[in-house]
Amino acid sequence: MLEGTKPVDNVGLVEPKTAHFSESLALASGSELHGFDIVYETYGELNKERSNAILICHALSGDHHVAGYHTPQDKKPGWWDNAIGPNKAIDTNRFFVVSPNNIGGCSGSTGPLTTNADTGKPYGPDFPLVTVKDWVKTQTMLADQLGIDVWAVIIGGSLGGMQCLEWSIAYPDRLKHTFVIAAAPKLSTQNIAFNEVARQAIRSDQNFNDGHYYENDNKPELGLMLARMLGHITYLSDDALDEKFGRELRDGEIKFGYEAEFQIESYLRYQGRAFVGRFDANSYLLLTKVLDYFDPASETGGSLAKALAPATAEFLVISFSSDWRFSPERSQEIVSALLDADKCVSYIEIQSKQGHDSFLMPIPRYHQVMSTALDRIAEGLGIA
Amino acid sequence: MLEGTKPVDNVGLVEPKTAHFSESLALASGSELHGFDIVYETYGELNKERSNAILICHALSGDHHVAGYHTPQDKKPGWWDNAIGPNKAIDTNRFFVVSPNNIGGCSGSTGPLTTNADTGKPYGPDFPLVTVKDWVKTQTMLADQLGIDVWAVIIGGSLGGMQCLEWSIAYPDRLKHTFVIAAAPKLSTQNIAFNEVARQAIRSDQNFNDGHYYENDNKPELGLMLARMLGHITYLSDDALDEKFGRELRDGEIKFGYEAEFQIESYLRYQGRAFVGRFDANSYLLLTKVLDYFDPASETGGSLAKALAPATAEFLVISFSSDWRFSPERSQEIVSALLDADKCVSYIEIQSKQGHDSFLMPIPRYHQVMSTALDRIAEGLGIA
Repeated sequence: MLEGTKPVDNVGLVEPKTAHFSESLALASGSELHGFDIVYETYGELNKERSNAILICHALSGDHHVAGYHTPQDKKPGWWDNAIGPNKAIDTNRFFVVSPNNIGGCSGSTGPLTTNADTGKPYGPDFPLVTVKDWVKTQTMLADQLGIDVWAVIIGGSLGGMQCLEWSIAYPDRLKHTFVIAAAPKLSTQNIAFNEVARQAIRSDQNFNDGHYYENDNKPELGLMLARMLGHITYLSDDALDEKFGRELRDGEIKFGYEAEFQIESYLRYQGRAFVGRFDANSYLLLTKVLDYFDPASETGGSLAKALAPATAEFLVISFSSDWRFSPERSQEIVSALLDADKCVSYIEIQSKQGHDSFLMPIPRYHQVMSTALDRIAEGLGIA
Repeated sequence: MLEGTKPVDNVGLVEPKTAHFSESLALASGSELHGFDIVYETYGELNKERSNAILICHALSGDHHVAGYHTPQDKKPGWWDNAIGPNKAIDTNRFFVVSPNNIGGCSGSTGPLTTNADTGKPYGPDFPLVTVKDWVKTQTMLADQLGIDVWAVIIGGSLGGMQCLEWSIAYPDRLKHTFVIAAAPKLSTQNIAFNEVARQAIRSDQNFNDGHYYENDNKPELGLMLARMLGHITYLSDDALDEKFGRELRDGEIKFGYEAEFQIESYLRYQGRAFVGRFDANSYLLLTKVLDYFDPASETGGSLAKALAPATAEFLVISFSSDWRFSPERSQEIVSALLDADKCVSYIEIQSKQGHDSFLMPIPRYHQVMSTALDRIAEGLGIA
C-alpha cells in the first residue's frame, strides 16, 4: 500500500527486550561463547497462527532500534522508522516485526563491551570474531524463544542483506520470503580495501592500546572518527555530495589553512564525532571483519548458484542506481545466481541519488515496491 | 611514431639541476617566499630556435625525476620513463623535455623540508600554502632562466593537467599545445572529502605534533601511511583490484584475526610503508590543499568557458574509461568548456582497466595518441 493512501503513523514508544541464552554457542571461528544476550525490539502483534512475523536484519552501524521512540524526549526515531509502522511500507497493523541487535555489536547484545565472566572486565579485543553464519544461528535461537518457526519475510539492507542470503541457504524451511536490499554476495577487493584502511585508522590510534582502552580516560576516538568519515564517503554518491555541498566554503572564502574550509569537511568531521559518541571501536573492527568474511560461494567452489541451491524462499532483490559501494551489478550477481539455481526471484533497480544510503531513505518507488510485495504476502497469509 | 617501429631506448643517466631564484615570490595566499629553488631535470637538446621544449607537470606524489636513472644501481627509472626517451611517445631525439619539481613538495625544490633562513630550522608547517597559480608562475620563471619563451607542448596528468589548464589561461602566449590528461577542472565534493580524510589521518597521528616533527625520533608515519593507502584505493579501479587480488588470502584460509588476511591488505600496507620512506607529511598535506583549491571558473562566475577564454593553445584532452577519481565525465567538462569558448581541442577516452593510475601506464593506444599528436607538432616545427 502506498504511503499517503492511508494515514501513516508511528509505532510510538517502544522498549527493548533482552533474550538470554545460557547454552554455549560454537562459532565459525572455532571459538565458543558461553551464553549470550540478544537485545531486540518488536512492533505489531504476532497472530495466533504465528505466521505474520518479519525479521529485520541490521547493517554495519545499525541496531535493534528500528522504529518508534524510546522516550517522549527522543529527537530521532529508530533508523528505519520511515518504512516500519502502522500503514507504512512494512505495516505493523498486519505484521509482527522483530529486530535484534547482532552479537559483537555495542548496543546491548553480547559483544566487546560485555563483561567477561571469567575476568570481570569487558571482553574488549578478546571478544571472538563472528560471522554472518553465527549471527543467523543466534537469530534462529531468538526465533525459537519467540515461538516463530517460520518467518513470513526476512528483510535486510547491505550487511543485513547478507544475513537474508545466509538464512535462505542455512535455514530454508524457516522463511517464506526475503527482501535482499543493496547487498552483495561478497565484498569486492575495493570494499575490503576500504575496510582495511578503516581498521588501520582505529588500530593505529595512540589510544587504541591493542583494544584495551575501556578503563583509560582516552579512547581511540580519532581513529574511529576517521573510519566513520571514510565509510560515510562511500555510503553516499558523488552526485549526492556535489548536490548537497558542492564546493561551498564555510566562510565564503579560502583561508589557506587546515581548519575546515569547505562545508563537506565540517560535515564529515561532525558525522565522525557524532559516531564516536554512540559506537565502540572494537565492535567497529569486528563488524568490518564480518563483512570481509561473508562469501557463501567459497564453500561451493566459487559457485553462488550452488551455494543458493538449498534455498526455498521467494526473493525480492532491490538495488539503487547511485550505489557504488554495493552497486546494482552486485545485486544482479545475486539475481543471476538465483535464476541459475532455478529459484523464484524478482529484481528491481530503484533510481536514486543517495548512493548506498538510499536503502535507508523514504524513496516512494522503493517503499511502494516493498508494500506491494507485502500486500501480496499478506493476502497469501489471509491477513490482508 | 608508434613504439616498436623504431628501437626504443632510455635517456640513460640523468642529473637533477637546481635553479635558484633570489627574488621574492608573492603567493596567491598573500604570503611571500623570499627566494626559492626549483629542482628539475632535462632530457634531449634544446634546438637553436628554442622551439622544441616540452614541459612536464607532475601530479600529487610525482617529482622532477621523470625519465632515466640517477645511478647505474637504480632499480627503477623516473616515473614516466615508459613515455619519455629516444623514439618513445615523447621523443627526446626531437624534443627538449623539462620536468621541474613543484615548490611545496619534498624532492628538492623549496618546501616544508627546506631550512627557513629566518629560523635556521625547516619551514615545516610554516611553509605557506601554495596554489596551481603559484606553481605555474614559478614554472614561467624557470622557463625564463632556461631561455624558453614558448613551450611547444605542456603535458600533465591529474594535478599536472590542472597546471596545463592554468598555463593556458594565465600565460596563453607561452605555449602552443597542451595535453591535459586524466584531469578535472576542479575537485568534486567527493574528491575533497577523500583529501580531508587523508589530512585528518596525518594530523591526528600522535607524532604529528602540529607539523613540528623533524627533530623528533618519531614522525607521523602511521598517518601518512593511512593517507597513502586511501589514495591508492582511489587511484585504482574496482575491476583492476578484483583482477589483481580478488579475495585471495595470504595463508589460504581465514585466520579470524587482525593481521593482514587478504592479499589486498598486505599490498596496501606495503604501499603505505614504501610511501612513508620517500614522502614528507607536511608536503602531502600541502599538496592535497593545492588540489582542493584549484577552480579557475570560480574567478569567472562559475563559467569554465569564460575562464578558458584567454587560451590560445591547441588542447589534447585524454581520459581513461576506468578512472573514477577523475572520470571521463570530468575531462568532458573541460572539452565542453573549450568548445563553448571556441578553442581548438581534440578529445579521446582511452579504454583502460587501471583507473586513475592509467595515465602512468604504457597503454599502447594512449602512447600512440600522444606520439601521433607530437609527430604533427614536430612537423609544424620542422623538426620531424
